[in-house]
Amino acid sequence: MIDIDAGLVERLLLELARDGAYGETGVWRTAYSPEWVAAQGRVAGWMDEAGLDVRRDAVGNVWGSLAGGEGGPVIATGSHVDSQTPGGRYDGALGVIAGVVALRTLRERFGTPRRTLEAVSLCEEEASRFHATNFWGSRAIIGAISPEEPDLIRDREGISIGGAMQAVGLDPRRIPAARRDDLDIWIELHIEQGPILEDEGLPVGVVDAITAIRHYVVELRGRSDHAGARPMKGRLDPMAGFAEIVTAVIGVALESGPPAVTTVGRVDVQPNLPSAVPDRVTFTLDSRHPDQRAVDAQHERQERLMREIAERRGLQISWTTPLDLPASPCDPTVVAVLEQAATKQGVRFQRMPSGAGHDTQNIAKIAKTAMVFARSKGGRSHTPEEITSVDDAVAATSVLAAALRDLAY
Amino acid sequence: MIDIDAGLVERLLLELARDGAYGETGVWRTAYSPEWVAAQGRVAGWMDEAGLDVRRDAVGNVWGSLAGGEGGPVIATGSHVDSQTPGGRYDGALGVIAGVVALRTLRERFGTPRRTLEAVSLCEEEASRFHATNFWGSRAIIGAISPEEPDLIRDREGISIGGAMQAVGLDPRRIPAARRDDLDIWIELHIEQGPILEDEGLPVGVVDAITAIRHYVVELRGRSDHAGARPMKGRLDPMAGFAEIVTAVIGVALESGPPAVTTVGRVDVQPNLPSAVPDRVTFTLDSRHPDQRAVDAQHERQERLMREIAERRGLQISWTTPLDLPASPCDPTVVAVLEQAATKQGVRFQRMPSGAGHDTQNIAKIAKTAMVFARSKGGRSHTPEEITSVDDAVAATSVLAAALRDLAY
Repeated sequence: MIDIDAGLVERLLLELARDGAYGETGVWRTAYSPEWVAAQGRVAGWMDEAGLDVRRDAVGNVWGSLAGGEGGPVIATGSHVDSQTPGGRYDGALGVIAGVVALRTLRERFGTPRRTLEAVSLCEEEASRFHATNFWGSRAIIGAISPEEPDLIRDREGISIGGAMQAVGLDPRRIPAARRDDLDIWIELHIEQGPILEDEGLPVGVVDAITAIRHYVVELRGRSDHAGARPMKGRLDPMAGFAEIVTAVIGVALESGPPAVTTVGRVDVQPNLPSAVPDRVTFTLDSRHPDQRAVDAQHERQERLMREIAERRGLQISWTTPLDLPASPCDPTVVAVLEQAATKQGVRFQRMPSGAGHDTQNIAKIAKTAMVFARSKGGRSHTPEEITSVDDAVAATSVLAAALRDLAY
Repeated sequence: MIDIDAGLVERLLLELARDGAYGETGVWRTAYSPEWVAAQGRVAGWMDEAGLDVRRDAVGNVWGSLAGGEGGPVIATGSHVDSQTPGGRYDGALGVIAGVVALRTLRERFGTPRRTLEAVSLCEEEASRFHATNFWGSRAIIGAISPEEPDLIRDREGISIGGAMQAVGLDPRRIPAARRDDLDIWIELHIEQGPILEDEGLPVGVVDAITAIRHYVVELRGRSDHAGARPMKGRLDPMAGFAEIVTAVIGVALESGPPAVTTVGRVDVQPNLPSAVPDRVTFTLDSRHPDQRAVDAQHERQERLMREIAERRGLQISWTTPLDLPASPCDPTVVAVLEQAATKQGVRFQRMPSGAGHDTQNIAKIAKTAMVFARSKGGRSHTPEEITSVDDAVAATSVLAAALRDLAY
């Protein structure tokens, strides 16, 4: 049984929330901003106080290491420090804090571990400043940032992510040095961002898979016509086709049942006038399932429906898939360690997939991974209103700490 | 049998197209712009050459009068000189030219009429510069412009329509002086803007009613959620509701059959992100039918469906109707005169409603009205690609001239 200091967890949550504080409860802390610099400095200070060896890597991930007596491959934990614009105090931040608190607690109670433990505050996950980044921190760790990206990826003001790095003292040419080849196990603690744990009355989830995510950007082209002078018959109306497609693709997820989800979140219409049948409707389709076979079938069915509807209506259709992340199953042995840890700690939990993407799905390419979820009030996230209670944060942190103890001591 | 000079019609079309020429075949001629000043000056010159008494009224409508021997209430014809941005050479312009050519032809062939004939080039109909104008020229004629409008109605650069009038030498305080109380009969010639005449293989239509037009601006509010972490069950997704509503309201027009039409042309989504269930979908619904009873039932059914769908899905719905024009039946005696004129001229035609709005529906409040349509190639309008052949323009103009002769001589 490992006791986590609830007062410490609460204090660190409140302190980190000061960097980029937005309104009463929000944060606005984008990658490589002054608020971000302050936050990473603050985390480095906590790691130092916790007795960890602190270093900042080439992209600005802040690592704190507790060297093990045996050395060898590393067991690491952490999450990201950047936020949505605005976001809340818990998304990412709670996992960073849980990692520091877990290692501090283990060191104070059990001393030097057998295997090396590391906590990390990842520099960027939300793509809230640089929309094309996609997990900058974890991609650097697995060596998946291509050489042209630092210059190509730009924020709304045209500043490249490489330029933003230089402005905070990081040399983008050194990005390859952030790569790790010595990570054996990775556990990320994160808020759930959905309502499942709340609905089940459970403080904690043990994540056994991260969903596949595909974003389609679909362009549906018809023919613009006068809304009064062109009879219904003979119209090539991409809005009518769009409506049928939305109902159909959402219907696929509804018929499959949970955990399949499908969302049409963005629509742009041309010319977007009240009295004109549109020429073109462009929309996004976000389609997810944590099982790769199931998601392949889901995508195939949705694509077939979109093609059929467009063809029947005489509309032209085309799409790209700018985001296409495969399902990322977690490592069964790490999942089992987390489940045993939760049981030992007396924390009620359930196994569940993650419907959101996380840095963990990148790190899964080089390490055995799993995640711990903490209950989100009302299932809210990506908003200043997101809340995870201190009790739930402590319960999740205690599961993390107990699992790290089982793995490293 | 009245012969219309095809060379004259073609020459005037090409000349007027120079004022605000846009690309090869388009025009961009907004109210009170330098191009508009040039066009109204050109039309005034043609009227003068045609032997008409020319005057510019308080809003810049240009009138050419052929005084009748008996005097008394006036028989007038015309259309608007402003265009879409960009628009084509025919929308509005053809009716202005037809009026001048008809009066010139009648004067040259038959001399002084018994009753006074007038041709007019109306200043503004398209609302392409001042989106809130709604038929500025014809509303001035019927005295329907309220005193605050000249200052309230502004273009995208913030210039008020009153200020734009002053810049071309018109005093907005004098707008009431544009009112006419001596119009007995009004006939407007216009391109069809739809494909019905082309489909029927006819050059000309005689319009017996102008459609009712209602624009709804509908706001559908749900709850934004994470596209991955929130299961389908429990979502309050306004996009799914929007899709069902589009299919339903368009379905009402499809079931009713022609001439019912319904269009959803504009959509704005908040926050409009690929990975977020939207909070809010705002859209326009344009619903039309030329029969007032039919359109009342159509609107009632569409409103009921929208409410039912929103309620079943737990969405909040509200709407405004920023445009709500009643159906405007044409005067049966004027329609009959036009039909007889077409028959005498040997021009094949059909009776039809107008699915587009026209200045005529305003002038119907103070005069007996009807319209002549000329065939639009491919049913296109509001685009530089709109075309009406010279043959069809001449056929329509000959019907107008023959009807004016029957009425005025």
